[in-house]
Amino acid sequence: MWSTFDRKMMTRALQLAAKGKYTTRPNPNVGCVITQGEKIVGEGFHLRAGEPHAEVHALNQAQEKAQGATAYVTLEPCSHYGRTGPCAVALVKAKVARVVIAADDPNPQVSGRGIKILREAGIQVDSGLYAEQSRALNLGFMKKMEAGRPWVTLKVAASLDGKTALSNSVSKWITGTESRQDVQKLRLQHCAVVTGINTVLDDDCSLNVRYDELGLLAGELNQGDIKQPLRVVLDSHCRMPLTAKLLNITSPVLLVSTQEYPQDFKDKLPSHVQYEVLPEQNGRVRLTTLMDFLGQSCNSVMIEAGATLIGSFIKEQLADELYLYQAPKILGSCGRSMMQLPDFQIMSELPSLNLLERVQLGQDLRMRFKLN
Amino acid sequence: MWSTFDRKMMTRALQLAAKGKYTTRPNPNVGCVITQGEKIVGEGFHLRAGEPHAEVHALNQAQEKAQGATAYVTLEPCSHYGRTGPCAVALVKAKVARVVIAADDPNPQVSGRGIKILREAGIQVDSGLYAEQSRALNLGFMKKMEAGRPWVTLKVAASLDGKTALSNSVSKWITGTESRQDVQKLRLQHCAVVTGINTVLDDDCSLNVRYDELGLLAGELNQGDIKQPLRVVLDSHCRMPLTAKLLNITSPVLLVSTQEYPQDFKDKLPSHVQYEVLPEQNGRVRLTTLMDFLGQSCNSVMIEAGATLIGSFIKEQLADELYLYQAPKILGSCGRSMMQLPDFQIMSELPSLNLLERVQLGQDLRMRFKLN
Repeated sequence: MWSTFDRKMMTRALQLAAKGKYTTRPNPNVGCVITQGEKIVGEGFHLRAGEPHAEVHALNQAQEKAQGATAYVTLEPCSHYGRTGPCAVALVKAKVARVVIAADDPNPQVSGRGIKILREAGIQVDSGLYAEQSRALNLGFMKKMEAGRPWVTLKVAASLDGKTALSNSVSKWITGTESRQDVQKLRLQHCAVVTGINTVLDDDCSLNVRYDELGLLAGELNQGDIKQPLRVVLDSHCRMPLTAKLLNITSPVLLVSTQEYPQDFKDKLPSHVQYEVLPEQNGRVRLTTLMDFLGQSCNSVMIEAGATLIGSFIKEQLADELYLYQAPKILGSCGRSMMQLPDFQIMSELPSLNLLERVQLGQDLRMRFKLN
Repeated sequence: MWSTFDRKMMTRALQLAAKGKYTTRPNPNVGCVITQGEKIVGEGFHLRAGEPHAEVHALNQAQEKAQGATAYVTLEPCSHYGRTGPCAVALVKAKVARVVIAADDPNPQVSGRGIKILREAGIQVDSGLYAEQSRALNLGFMKKMEAGRPWVTLKVAASLDGKTALSNSVSKWITGTESRQDVQKLRLQHCAVVTGINTVLDDDCSLNVRYDELGLLAGELNQGDIKQPLRVVLDSHCRMPLTAKLLNITSPVLLVSTQEYPQDFKDKLPSHVQYEVLPEQNGRVRLTTLMDFLGQSCNSVMIEAGATLIGSFIKEQLADELYLYQAPKILGSCGRSMMQLPDFQIMSELPSLNLLERVQLGQDLRMRFKLN
């Protein structure tokens, strides 16, 4: 069904789509290539919410050469009138002859509508080329659209013996520079970073993205293009100190508790800090409700927390992926465990982990697992 | 100094040497290649203690073509009259013109003697080509000769969170088939396998090499050529039960305690089981004395034990290498730790680990570390 040229062009479109990976959220990463015969006449990708879609950039570049052309798009062209006009209509107006699509729109309310507009205008539409690769670029967008909850990535940095810190909380630095840069990039790809109050009290962490620590290639991203993820702290019993470093860095913070904060505390909060009271379960914020709540605004959340919270996400089967940064060190049996889990009695009770990849980062290893 | 041809021939000699890796102990792995011009006229390697050395095999093959030839030997030819005549003398008698040597003999009493015999006979001797590679094939032999103690390899099979078993001792199977085959091969390359009585009581382990579980290639090793490593159990307080599986497999066992076994127990021991009383330290067998004792007969020992004994070898800096077989599983915080270590307060107190290699074995990862 797919020619070598089709595969080559969609691969190119996927590469273009990936260029938006640090900036498009909550919008999806989309790339587009327009060809006349075997010549590329237009290319584009979506860079930022509110800016033109990939198809618009590519059509602008192609101009009148779009007539009779083939357009390769990594996601079904949109059919809605949002901040930009519907891309399906733009492709019709430009009189392209054929549209090749990787993945269908995951939104059940509009899925297939873009394709319908194209086909009704007599355009040949072929869909499904490298659908999985396109979805992989948009795990959060896809999950939110399909399940109404954000994609959940657990991040753990640990030693060979599974420890995240010494018994006295010292954890600077278990992993090396390359791993820490990678974590910064991972934060940038998530709509929110979630932690627990104990991690804040122990480490006085910032949880923000720091441009200097991203280790990006020249030209990969401008400092001004950084969109800080929402920093979420689960603070069930209102223990957050106003002096926490995290509160005093000017980018959005959400405090989630199971009871109201004192008025005095609320009055003193900086304007970039919001709070929300959610129902409790066993004395803590109920995680399923938290996920439904975050799903209203976030495609993807990254959990950077201690053993209890990480363990809860695993136990409640709320996590999609685990990123384990493993340093070639041994912290010893007194160190802090990476995840609190039940006392399993048989091997079949263990959490289901599916190894997706192992990547060397300096001396460390980054292992990525699909959960559940 | 070394020509491309020299490097090629010594590489070949090292490959030949490695063919003896499962069978030569306590003798070293040695390979030999004899060349006339650019033609190989003889090859050999040492296969088993008591059988001819590598040089003898190669000279036998070369016959009169050895005259004026170059001999590549991975270890300095021996100068002593042991079970076979001195190889240095054999090379002189065969009238070779040049001998290229990788590593010098590590035995301080004879090091250089073989070279002296060759030079005094007017043979050109060049030494030091791929010395490290040759030493790497003979880590145990080298250490015993140079330090009087065996090379110590720690073997740990653990999960991502550093656990070796569930809290109820269940550990079948954390790692996969490939890892377990690799452990079998590792046992075969060590003179002794050391464990603690608790591991015997918990797992009723055999600690022997099982031909069917080696996963060897056809022709790599015959079942009859398997030389079982000495199985050593540290049983400080004489708790070994006569019914232990380990005692009832007919290959050498050494029980080490800090007090005499009851006469009744000793009377009932099978003839392949020996026992030894060694001094105690903090209620356990003193490990430094154990190493001196084992150094009398063993080049290399492999420690397959629980967290306490593995931790002790690390703390007392008695271990040379760590083989960590890591399975992509999470056993949870209640599982058994891989090593009992002190409550470190700063990162600089951590054991010094130098990552040598990471090898994928099925779904598992084998990581090898130099210690100290």
